[in-house]
Amino acid sequence: MTGAEIRAQCRTGEFTGQTSGLAPGYVQCNIVILPSEAATHFETFCRQNPKPCPLLAVSDQPGDAALPRLGENIDIRTDVPQYRVWRDGVLTEQRHDIADLWQDDWVAFALGCSFSFEEALIATGIEIRNITEGVNVPMYRTHIDCVSAGPFSGKMVVSMRPMPAADAIEAIQICSRYPSVHGAPIHFGEPDLIGIKDLSSPDFGDAVTVKEADVPLFWACGVTPQVALEAAKLPLAITHEPGHMLVTDLKNSELASD
Amino acid sequence: MTGAEIRAQCRTGEFTGQTSGLAPGYVQCNIVILPSEAATHFETFCRQNPKPCPLLAVSDQPGDAALPRLGENIDIRTDVPQYRVWRDGVLTEQRHDIADLWQDDWVAFALGCSFSFEEALIATGIEIRNITEGVNVPMYRTHIDCVSAGPFSGKMVVSMRPMPAADAIEAIQICSRYPSVHGAPIHFGEPDLIGIKDLSSPDFGDAVTVKEADVPLFWACGVTPQVALEAAKLPLAITHEPGHMLVTDLKNSELASD
Repeated sequence: MTGAEIRAQCRTGEFTGQTSGLAPGYVQCNIVILPSEAATHFETFCRQNPKPCPLLAVSDQPGDAALPRLGENIDIRTDVPQYRVWRDGVLTEQRHDIADLWQDDWVAFALGCSFSFEEALIATGIEIRNITEGVNVPMYRTHIDCVSAGPFSGKMVVSMRPMPAADAIEAIQICSRYPSVHGAPIHFGEPDLIGIKDLSSPDFGDAVTVKEADVPLFWACGVTPQVALEAAKLPLAITHEPGHMLVTDLKNSELASD
Repeated sequence: MTGAEIRAQCRTGEFTGQTSGLAPGYVQCNIVILPSEAATHFETFCRQNPKPCPLLAVSDQPGDAALPRLGENIDIRTDVPQYRVWRDGVLTEQRHDIADLWQDDWVAFALGCSFSFEEALIATGIEIRNITEGVNVPMYRTHIDCVSAGPFSGKMVVSMRPMPAADAIEAIQICSRYPSVHGAPIHFGEPDLIGIKDLSSPDFGDAVTVKEADVPLFWACGVTPQVALEAAKLPLAITHEPGHMLVTDLKNSELASD
């Protein structure tokens, strides 16, 4: 299936599931939708925190539901398999269509997602433990402050993938070529040094096995903006449901820098 | 001082010291000089083990003491500050001139040296512990086999530089751009996994302080060919004295890949 085929099924409500592993090779995105006043601050937040919030595309103008940079005929009101509706910073509802909520001043943001670099790592033979074990990647709140912008602030969330040191060196090399999908890890080794107390109790996602010769690698994570959104307590905001991403027409290979 | 100025002082015998920190910005090289029969095997050894033996230049033909790729008017018989003379695989003599030993079928090899990437790391603000502490970098024999070629074989020797994880990630990114000077580290973390029992007892060079938040990073090291030379037990062979390198006219910045 292509990105366009998956979006077509999302639009009709035929597909509402997780997108991990679907449409191999196609870029998938985290989505945040905000009223235009908050959107200005959120764009600044993304630009100031590019590792957790790598901005791939923004609505050309408020109220515009297309994202032409990411694909043909995208309608961001219907093309994500599952949305989250946030009211006053609290998750209140999950739904597969936000057409009836959409407002004239809304702005959609698409942020890069780790699925893109996981694919590049697997292609070189590196084992991605959460994929081998068939679970969500483990994610943790750190003690690292994001740079605030308007109402948006909070600690950085990281995802963790354990692997042997030789693979870790290669993973750092490969991910450095993908700055638009979180780039190189921000830390490896001692979890405590970035404020993580217990690897076996992730704050989001599932725990994975860490073998004796493994080093845990920590990447800035696209859940960070959802934490910033909780802090912002906007009357109304929309995100994708984690794991239920917008699948685009871009290819992961196009994201690699030289 | 430039590379050419240091070589001129080596040639007259005025300078016979260590070259670490001299002629900043200029590429320094490990030197191996062998009779042409062994040279064929040694070139294969280097090509098969590019991380410890990154070949920067070889004599155009046997007996040719110039290395025009590396600098103007280089005379490899006189322009290294200090040489080692090996007989039957045993270090027998140190001297600052080998003009009287030179033979018509000798071939000179110049290999990249970690001084080049240390300079690039320091330029980005990374602390290089052996430089801070004013000692030689610690080097260790590993259990990693080199790929053999003719009489040349042996275990890989690595150099070790401890630093915090965030610096280590940046060091891996930077060194990946310098494949001709050992490239990215080959290992980090647990020394035992590559056969090193005790970081405080290096096989060559000096021990350095490893702080609590440090991770030890291990780079393939230019001492590896000297270990292979011991194994080869050639009747006569020449190397530079460790730390006493050939200083070239090349700039370290020219070695960086895009």
